[in-house]
Amino acid sequence: MSKLGGRRAIVANKMCFISLLTDFGLKDVYVGVMKGVIWGIAPQAQIADITHLIHPQNVLEGALALGRAAPYFPAGAVHLAVVDPGVGTARRPIAARLGEQAFVGPDNGLCTVLVDQASQAGASLQFVHLDQPRYWLPEISNVFHGRDIFAPVAAHLANGVPLEALGAPIADAHLLPLPKPARTAQGWRGQVLWVDSFGNLSTNLGSQHLPGIGPVVVRIAGREIHGLVKTFGDRGPGELVVMLDSSGSLSICTVNGSAASQLGAQFGAGVEIIHER
Amino acid sequence: MSKLGGRRAIVANKMCFISLLTDFGLKDVYVGVMKGVIWGIAPQAQIADITHLIHPQNVLEGALALGRAAPYFPAGAVHLAVVDPGVGTARRPIAARLGEQAFVGPDNGLCTVLVDQASQAGASLQFVHLDQPRYWLPEISNVFHGRDIFAPVAAHLANGVPLEALGAPIADAHLLPLPKPARTAQGWRGQVLWVDSFGNLSTNLGSQHLPGIGPVVVRIAGREIHGLVKTFGDRGPGELVVMLDSSGSLSICTVNGSAASQLGAQFGAGVEIIHER
Amino acid sequence: MSKLGGRRAIVANKMCFISLLTDFGLKDVYVGVMKGVIWGIAPQAQIADITHLIHPQNVLEGALALGRAAPYFPAGAVHLAVVDPGVGTARRPIAARLGEQAFVGPDNGLCTVLVDQASQAGASLQFVHLDQPRYWLPEISNVFHGRDIFAPVAAHLANGVPLEALGAPIADAHLLPLPKPARTAQGWRGQVLWVDSFGNLSTNLGSQHLPGIGPVVVRIAGREIHGLVKTFGDRGPGELVVMLDSSGSLSICTVNGSAASQLGAQFGAGVEIIHER
Repeated sequence: MSKLGGRRAIVANKMCFISLLTDFGLKDVYVGVMKGVIWGIAPQAQIADITHLIHPQNVLEGALALGRAAPYFPAGAVHLAVVDPGVGTARRPIAARLGEQAFVGPDNGLCTVLVDQASQAGASLQFVHLDQPRYWLPEISNVFHGRDIFAPVAAHLANGVPLEALGAPIADAHLLPLPKPARTAQGWRGQVLWVDSFGNLSTNLGSQHLPGIGPVVVRIAGREIHGLVKTFGDRGPGELVVMLDSSGSLSICTVNGSAASQLGAQFGAGVEIIHER
Repeated sequence: MSKLGGRRAIVANKMCFISLLTDFGLKDVYVGVMKGVIWGIAPQAQIADITHLIHPQNVLEGALALGRAAPYFPAGAVHLAVVDPGVGTARRPIAARLGEQAFVGPDNGLCTVLVDQASQAGASLQFVHLDQPRYWLPEISNVFHGRDIFAPVAAHLANGVPLEALGAPIADAHLLPLPKPARTAQGWRGQVLWVDSFGNLSTNLGSQHLPGIGPVVVRIAGREIHGLVKTFGDRGPGELVVMLDSSGSLSICTVNGSAASQLGAQFGAGVEIIHER
Repeated sequence: MSKLGGRRAIVANKMCFISLLTDFGLKDVYVGVMKGVIWGIAPQAQIADITHLIHPQNVLEGALALGRAAPYFPAGAVHLAVVDPGVGTARRPIAARLGEQAFVGPDNGLCTVLVDQASQAGASLQFVHLDQPRYWLPEISNVFHGRDIFAPVAAHLANGVPLEALGAPIADAHLLPLPKPARTAQGWRGQVLWVDSFGNLSTNLGSQHLPGIGPVVVRIAGREIHGLVKTFGDRGPGELVVMLDSSGSLSICTVNGSAASQLGAQFGAGVEIIHER
């Protein structure tokens, strides 16, 4: 009846932390199943859902979400991420140690932002191709590696199994090209890279793209917004504002409302910063 | 890369419990981020989501939901609640000890029902203005105090840091006026204060508003419902019934259906109890 | 103020695991409340949500979901399931030991698939009628036994209280008739029993219904699909495929899309396997 096989749980003495990020949605049993598998191997693991509402198969969105969440997890945290349109094909299952944290998931670029952040922090990066079935469930399906490979591997990592034991080192992990802001005659042009459930539009522009001096104008969806505010309270309900959001990104928001609805803007929408003189 | 700063985790020996209630929705990374921050400080904390689907900026709805959930948490539980339209403005961040439980969140009335319940139980009430940044994350944004102030403070409280260490005592915490039932010529008039996902309409009326003797009629949305039932099984599917619900409130329900849809009624809808003679 | 009564928590030394499956949805406080109740009794319990989006009162759907998830939980796990249209009526509250795992919930067939699986594995089965109020909350409502009876009982079971202490043995637990595939002249006829959030259509047909030799055709919603694939990558985006899914069931899927939308098919839709010659 049990699908877990005979491998006994190895209880580490220390606390360990595993985050979950998927495109599985909330109605199915898949996420609960991964938690069951993890606790069969690492019964003490603290597990936090980051989100399971990544749009199906949108690897870039998953990579960006991981990048927003991971820096707030404790050292030693293992980020188990499954947005995996290539499951069952030749795409490799991988794990990575990125500074003090770890990633487990498909080799499709889902770890891109975590790798970027670790690189920029000068942290060491190690990747392995998960090729050691003794750290997996006994039976491997072609459609749910989250359960069969990634959850058990994340649990073993959290238990202290060294990365090198889990597979052969690789140096060519797949990384996605991240949309980068471009210089324009008048300032910078970037994109909306996150629309949160309040309808705030977070971009790949930040304080480094603002003029050091002088007023600023932000153009999006045919509208111009003048000046930056520090907080929602600086304007009245319903007003469009530009601010630096909780991830340090330039964000277009409607006070007590949804900028996404007001502007009809979504993921990928162009945003221009114009440095006025 | 880490956003948690150098402060080491203080592991308490005892179990501790933190509940989360927000209007953040389920698709974003915000809730997961708060869990990461909590576990960086209180690695042993058991964290339960109460709900993250409070309507955006609806502080009263959040306060009512907290009041429904908190009495079922163990002594020592810390309720971390963030429905915070005034984030980044002059509204204070606060924490409170309310009898055996604690509240952490914005000073905008979100703790109103918890305070009411503790007062009625004769419990002691203590409030502090969170003004000690050494219990916060190292960097404080203007838009996400849930992550930067409230989550770390809740974790420290759960670890046993005394309330007084977290800020200066205050006696003027903001409390909301709660909608109260009013006497009418024929009985009582109240309001729908909770519509659950089954479409049950829970009110601020209770057994104390029922006639001690004689039949009762409940009027809502132009309909009259005669008599109270004890359980859904007392009537057939699709019938409108009135009962005392799991929070002791008078509730209008449709057996195996949605009274909210059937009546077109929602939060705030008027409800009359008519004591017949 | 506390609703938990004076009963002290009995902290077991070992880890324990409780899964939750309900039709409560995600916006209300009900699930958080059950976690609070559990931790008041079993503070060390690891609690995993399986799903709370079972369609309201759909007991069969709940039973099938439990059957998909439970085999991946560790030995000793307690599955607390509440899809309970008969709450407050004569339907009994029950608990069961099914091999190495346990079930707690209403006696309405919600445990049917777990019982089937345990029987097929030759595991021992024991059922009790929950009739010992000292293992419940002090006050019992007529509408929320999940909180008042099932959560406390699950916590006590997880703590190691023996099943027999919780109630009198019964041998007539209510089980649902499960839809079974039927032989046809050309092969088998079954039903769609699960539509996941990707829109994949999982059936009650499996590898045992496939021809040992020769090609296969699957007919659903007036369409014919020829041949089985091993993985999504075997066909292009938008193509309809048939495969064995992660639960070993024959599943009709659209590569990187929704077969449910493409076919207009849902729970209960007929599916034919035709053994070609």
